[in-house]
Amino acid sequence: MDLFFDAASVAVIGVSSSPTNLGRAIVYSLMQFQYQGLIHLVGPKGGVFLGHKIYPSILDVPDPVDLAAVLVPARAVPEVIRQCGQKGVKRVVVESAGFRELGDDRRGLEQEIQAALSQYGMRMIGPNCIGVINRHTGLAVPFMPMRPETDPGSVGIVSQSGGVGAMAINNCAAENLGFSKFASIGNKLDVDENDVLDYLVQDDQTRVVFAYLEGIADGRRLMEIAASSAKPIVVHKSNRGGSGSIIARSHSASLAADDAVVDAALRQSGILRVWDQTEALRAIKGFSLPPMKGARLAVISRSGGHAVMAADAADELGFVLPPFPKELVEAAERHARAGVIQFHNPMDLGDVFDLELYKALVAESIQREDVDGVLFILNYQGIFDADPCRKLIPELGRIMHKAGKPIAVCVFTMHEELALNKRAAGFPIFEDPRDALQALAWNRDHKRGPVEVFAAEPPEGVRRKEAERLLKTAEAGPAAPDLLAQLLECYGIPVVPWAVASGEDEAVEAARRLGFPVALKTANPQVVHKSDQGAVILSLSTEEEVGRAYGRLKELGPRVLVQKMAQPGLEWLVGGRRDDAFGPVVVTGLGGIYVEVFRETALRVGPVTAEQARAMLKECRGSALLRGARGRAVLDEESLADCVARLSWMLHDLPAITELDLNPVCVYEKGVTALDWRATIGEKA
Amino acid sequence: MDLFFDAASVAVIGVSSSPTNLGRAIVYSLMQFQYQGLIHLVGPKGGVFLGHKIYPSILDVPDPVDLAAVLVPARAVPEVIRQCGQKGVKRVVVESAGFRELGDDRRGLEQEIQAALSQYGMRMIGPNCIGVINRHTGLAVPFMPMRPETDPGSVGIVSQSGGVGAMAINNCAAENLGFSKFASIGNKLDVDENDVLDYLVQDDQTRVVFAYLEGIADGRRLMEIAASSAKPIVVHKSNRGGSGSIIARSHSASLAADDAVVDAALRQSGILRVWDQTEALRAIKGFSLPPMKGARLAVISRSGGHAVMAADAADELGFVLPPFPKELVEAAERHARAGVIQFHNPMDLGDVFDLELYKALVAESIQREDVDGVLFILNYQGIFDADPCRKLIPELGRIMHKAGKPIAVCVFTMHEELALNKRAAGFPIFEDPRDALQALAWNRDHKRGPVEVFAAEPPEGVRRKEAERLLKTAEAGPAAPDLLAQLLECYGIPVVPWAVASGEDEAVEAARRLGFPVALKTANPQVVHKSDQGAVILSLSTEEEVGRAYGRLKELGPRVLVQKMAQPGLEWLVGGRRDDAFGPVVVTGLGGIYVEVFRETALRVGPVTAEQARAMLKECRGSALLRGARGRAVLDEESLADCVARLSWMLHDLPAITELDLNPVCVYEKGVTALDWRATIGEKA
Repeated sequence: MDLFFDAASVAVIGVSSSPTNLGRAIVYSLMQFQYQGLIHLVGPKGGVFLGHKIYPSILDVPDPVDLAAVLVPARAVPEVIRQCGQKGVKRVVVESAGFRELGDDRRGLEQEIQAALSQYGMRMIGPNCIGVINRHTGLAVPFMPMRPETDPGSVGIVSQSGGVGAMAINNCAAENLGFSKFASIGNKLDVDENDVLDYLVQDDQTRVVFAYLEGIADGRRLMEIAASSAKPIVVHKSNRGGSGSIIARSHSASLAADDAVVDAALRQSGILRVWDQTEALRAIKGFSLPPMKGARLAVISRSGGHAVMAADAADELGFVLPPFPKELVEAAERHARAGVIQFHNPMDLGDVFDLELYKALVAESIQREDVDGVLFILNYQGIFDADPCRKLIPELGRIMHKAGKPIAVCVFTMHEELALNKRAAGFPIFEDPRDALQALAWNRDHKRGPVEVFAAEPPEGVRRKEAERLLKTAEAGPAAPDLLAQLLECYGIPVVPWAVASGEDEAVEAARRLGFPVALKTANPQVVHKSDQGAVILSLSTEEEVGRAYGRLKELGPRVLVQKMAQPGLEWLVGGRRDDAFGPVVVTGLGGIYVEVFRETALRVGPVTAEQARAMLKECRGSALLRGARGRAVLDEESLADCVARLSWMLHDLPAITELDLNPVCVYEKGVTALDWRATIGEKA
Repeated sequence: MDLFFDAASVAVIGVSSSPTNLGRAIVYSLMQFQYQGLIHLVGPKGGVFLGHKIYPSILDVPDPVDLAAVLVPARAVPEVIRQCGQKGVKRVVVESAGFRELGDDRRGLEQEIQAALSQYGMRMIGPNCIGVINRHTGLAVPFMPMRPETDPGSVGIVSQSGGVGAMAINNCAAENLGFSKFASIGNKLDVDENDVLDYLVQDDQTRVVFAYLEGIADGRRLMEIAASSAKPIVVHKSNRGGSGSIIARSHSASLAADDAVVDAALRQSGILRVWDQTEALRAIKGFSLPPMKGARLAVISRSGGHAVMAADAADELGFVLPPFPKELVEAAERHARAGVIQFHNPMDLGDVFDLELYKALVAESIQREDVDGVLFILNYQGIFDADPCRKLIPELGRIMHKAGKPIAVCVFTMHEELALNKRAAGFPIFEDPRDALQALAWNRDHKRGPVEVFAAEPPEGVRRKEAERLLKTAEAGPAAPDLLAQLLECYGIPVVPWAVASGEDEAVEAARRLGFPVALKTANPQVVHKSDQGAVILSLSTEEEVGRAYGRLKELGPRVLVQKMAQPGLEWLVGGRRDDAFGPVVVTGLGGIYVEVFRETALRVGPVTAEQARAMLKECRGSALLRGARGRAVLDEESLADCVARLSWMLHDLPAITELDLNPVCVYEKGVTALDWRATIGEKA
C-alpha cells in the first residue's frame, strides 16, 4: 500500500479539453492539496490542460510513473491497464464505474482487468471509487472536487463509498479534525478494506481509523488485523439486509451478510461499530482525546441543568463520580457569590463566573489520582463574555495534553459563537453532555493492545483426524444422527447414551443395554422436523413398549436411534453455522421454548476460548438460572462453556458442517448432556 | 398565564448602578428583544440606567405595572412581593436563587412568599429561574444575556433549568428554527410545568412544545394536558435517579421519581420522551416539517452510500419504500450520463448532476398518492457547484409546503457551505440519513388529536363501596390475606377458592368444603416472605395432612388461609403501586422465575382500559406463550387483560393500598386465577 500513498509521480488517464471532463477534477484535487510530485496527463484526444500536455497514451509519457489514476469508460479500462503495465506503472486507481455493480454480465470486464494486473504484477484500487489521498504529500486523486479545510490530522479513513468517504472528511473538518490518509475502495476488485486497514494500523501518521463498509469480503482477516491493532478502529457497516441490500449490490456489488454475525465479529476483535455518521464522528472525536484509563469522572458545569443531564448519562454509561476533595470544594466556595451553590461531583458552578477558577478546578481535578477524565460544561452566550471563554478553551486543551487524560469540553452558546470557538479550540469539543460522555465511554472501553480474538489451542482430547475420517463418508444434506453423535464424541461433547438399531430385536437389545427408560427416534436424516412427524417416541419403560415404538418408526426407515432418557435439567441451546465471510460462528442461549420467546442468544466467531465461552453465557440474561436464581441449585456453567468452546472447534475444524444445533443441552449441577442434535453437511463435503 | 406573556409593562426589581449588577442584564434582554411595552426600574439605591430612573421601591413607580421581574437577595424577596401586591402587580417572576435548593431551612422563606401571593391574588414564576420570553412582543426578562438569532418561530419552550432553556433556544437558532414563547420555571413554587404547558398547547403562535424537566409535580395533570393536545410535545426529563438526583435537589429541588413510571406515563399520554438535547433538537426539527401520515417513504440520493444507509435506517424505523413508477424511473434514466446507475427506491442518482431533474423527481414523488414523505439526500462539495445547490434547497421547501407532506432534506457538504445553506434553507435540514429518518419517524408516530389516556368507566360488577367499607377496618402495614382476597373479589378478580380457619378443626372442615388437595398458609400479615419462613404448605391431600400442617403453621399465629390447590397454568404477574406523582401504576409480565431473569414487564398509569391492558400484554415478549407458541394451547389473554384492568381500578379507587402484587396469576385456556396475593396499606388508611 505504501506505493499507493507515497507515489512520487502520478498520471491522470482520461483527461480531455472538454469543460465537463471529470478527469480534470482529479487534476484540480492534486492542485488543491498541493501535491509535491510530478503530474502527467493522458487522454486519447491530446491537447493541453493547466499548462500540462495531454499525452495520447501512458506509453507516450517520457518519465517513469508511480501511480495512474484512471477515469475512462469501463470498456476501455482493461486496455489502459495493460498499457500501464507495459509502461511499468505498479499502482493504478480505477475510478470509472460500470462494472459488476450493474449486473453479472460485466464480470468479463473485471476478469480481463484481473488478468492484466496479474500479468504485470500491479495492484489496483477500485473500480467505481474516488481513490486515495495522502494529506501529508498532497497526493489526492478524487474526481470529486475537494479542498483541505483543516491542517493534516491523525484520522485514517477507508470507505467503500466515495461520497460517504468525502463526507467523513468534511465531518471531521467541521470538528477541526484533520485526516492523515484516505482511500475509497469501491468494488474492491483487487485491493480491499483489509489491505488499507492493515496499512493504516501501521501508519505512523494515523492514530484513529474509520472505515465505512457495505460488505466484508474476508471477515477473519479483518478480525485479525483489528485484534492486532493498538489504534482504535471505528466501523460503520451499512447494508444490513432488507431494503439496503438491493442498492448496495448495484452501488458497490456487496451482498448482505448476516448482520448479527458482523456485529459480534467486530465487537470480538475490538472494533467499535457505529450505526450512523453522527455516531462515527462522535467516536472519532472521543478517540482524538487522550486515553481514558478508568471510569472515574469529574464533572464541572456552569449550568445546573446540564450537570443533572451529565450525571444521568454518567450513570447510564458506567462512569463513577468520586467526591471532590475538601480543598477543591473550599476553593470553589470562596468564589461563590451569594453562597447559593453546593459543590458535589457533578459540580454546579452556578453563579460563579470566574474563568481562572474554572481553569484551576479543571487542572486540579484532571491531575488527581482518583480521576481518569473530566467533563467540563461551559455555557455562555457570547454577548458580553465571548473573549474570556474563547481564551479559556485552548488553555483547557493544553492542560489536557499535559495531563495525558481526556477533558471532554462541552460548550453551549449561540451558534455563530460556537462555530468560532470550535475553530479556535485545537481539539474536538462537544455540544451535549450525553454525547460527550458517550464519546468518553467509547474511549474508556477501547482495549489498548492486542486482543485475543480466536482460541489458539483446541480443548483437551479433541480427535480431529478421526472426525475428518468419519466425515469423508458423509453425503451432503442433513447428517445422520449416529454419525453426528460420533463426531460430537470426537470433540468431547457429552451426548446422552445412544445406540443405533436396524430392527425390532436390535432396538430392544439396545434399550436393555442402555437401561430403561429410553427414547426412540428415526435415524433417517431426511426427516428434519422429527417431533412434528411423530418420529420421536419418549419414555419407553419396557421391552414391549420399545418393540411397539419400533413398529411405528420403521415406516420412516429401518434405522432408529435408541437413547437413554436423561434426567431433566435446565435446557440450553448450543449451535452454530459456517458464515461465508467469517467462517465458524457459534451461538448459545437459554433453550427450549424460551429461545423463540425471548430470542436472546450470544454469538461469536470461532473457535472460542473457554473464557470467551463463559463471557457468552454471561451475556445471556437467562444465565441467571445457571447461577442459582431464587434459591435454585447452582448449575455447571463451566461444563456448558466447555461444550460451547468444543462445538466452536468442531465447526472450525470441519468446514463441511454448515449448520449444527444441539437443542437441548441439559445442564445439571454436575455436567451437561446433549439430548438432541442435528447438522447439515455442505455440498463440498 | 396570558398575563405573564402579554404584560404591557414590566418593572425590573433589583437594578443598581454597579457594572456587575445582574438586574441590568434583564434590562438588556428587554432591549435586545425590542420589548414593545413600558419598562420601569427599581433598586434600593436609586440612580439611573440607560436613561431610566431607578425607583427605590415598586411603590414609587408612577404607572401601573403588569409584571415584575425580581432579582434581589433571597431574604428580601418576600417583602418585595408584598410591595408588588400593594402596588397591584398581578404577576411576578422571581429569578433570585437561595431557596429550598440549598436545604430545608429555607422553606420558611418560601412559605412567606406563598402567603404573600395568596394574600394579594398574585401568580409567580420561580424562584431560581430566568423567567419568560414572548418572542412576538419582545417581553424578555432573563438575566442571562440573550439576543434573537432568528425570526420568531413556532416552538414553545418550558424549562426547569434556565441554562438548559437558553441553550434550547440557541440550538433551535442553529437550525434556523425560531421560538414563540419561552418560560424557565425554576423551583416551581407557584406556577409549574403544567401551567405553562397548558398555556402553550392552546397558544396560537406555538406549534411544537418542548419541555425540559428535572421533576414532575402533578403527573396526572401533565398526562391529561398532553393527551388533550393536538400539538406534539417533546419532553426531556432528566434527573433519572442515581448521581443526578443529588444535584437536581440542590439545583431545583426535585426529587427523583421512579423513572420507569415517568417513561410509561409520558408515552401513554402521547408525549415523545427524548434522552438528550441532541435528540430533542432532532425531534423539534422533525415536528417542524408537515405531518407524515403514513410509513411510505421515497428516498432519492445523490450518493449511493448514503442511499444504503437510508435504506438500513428505513428498515430499522419501520418505513416502507414503494417502488418508483415506471415514468419516474424513465425520466431519471434519460438523464443518466453513462447508464451506470440503476433506479430503485432508494434511488441512487449517481453520476446524474442535474438539479432540475432532482427537483422534478422530488416534486413528482411527494405528490404521489402512495408516498407519505420523501428523504432527499444531496451531497455536493460547494467548490464548483455551490450556487445551484443553494438555490435548489429553498425550492424544495416550497414544494414541501405545497404538498403538505414532509421532505426531509439531508445535506452533506463542506462545513462552511453547510452553515450557509442551513441559514438559507427556510426549514430544518439534516446531516445524516438516520437522524433524518428518526425525526420523520417521530413525526409519523405522533398521534394527532386527543389520546384516551385513562379508562373512563370501571369494568362491570366492581363493588367499590363495599371495598372501601372493608378497608376502613384495615391497619397500616401488610394487608391480611383474607381481607385482600375479599377486596380482590369486590373488583371481580378471580382468586383460587379459599377460607380462613382459626384452629385445626376449622382448617380440616374448610379443606373438606373446598375439596382436596389444598394448601395452607399463615394468615398472619406480618409474615412477609411466606415461602422462606415455611409458612406455605402445598398439596395436602387428606384431613390428617391438613391437621399436621395446621400444627406447624400455628406457631406463626392461629389464623391460617386454606386454599384449594389450583391446576397448573402459565404463571403471570399482575401488580402495581401508588406513585406520588402519577397515582396508580399497574404492571404485568411473565411471572414466576422469569420475572427476575428477564425483567420484562409492561407498565401503565391507571386506571387502564381493557384495550390498554391488551396492549400491555402485547408489549411483553413473554406473551407469545399466551398465544400458543410452538404448538402449545392458546390461553385466555382476554381474561388476563381484564384482570389487569380491574387491578388498575382497584389501585385507583382505593388509594390506601400503596402496593399490590398478584404472583402468580395462573392463565388457563379459559379464565385466570390468582394463587397468591399480597398488599401494603399506607399510613393514612
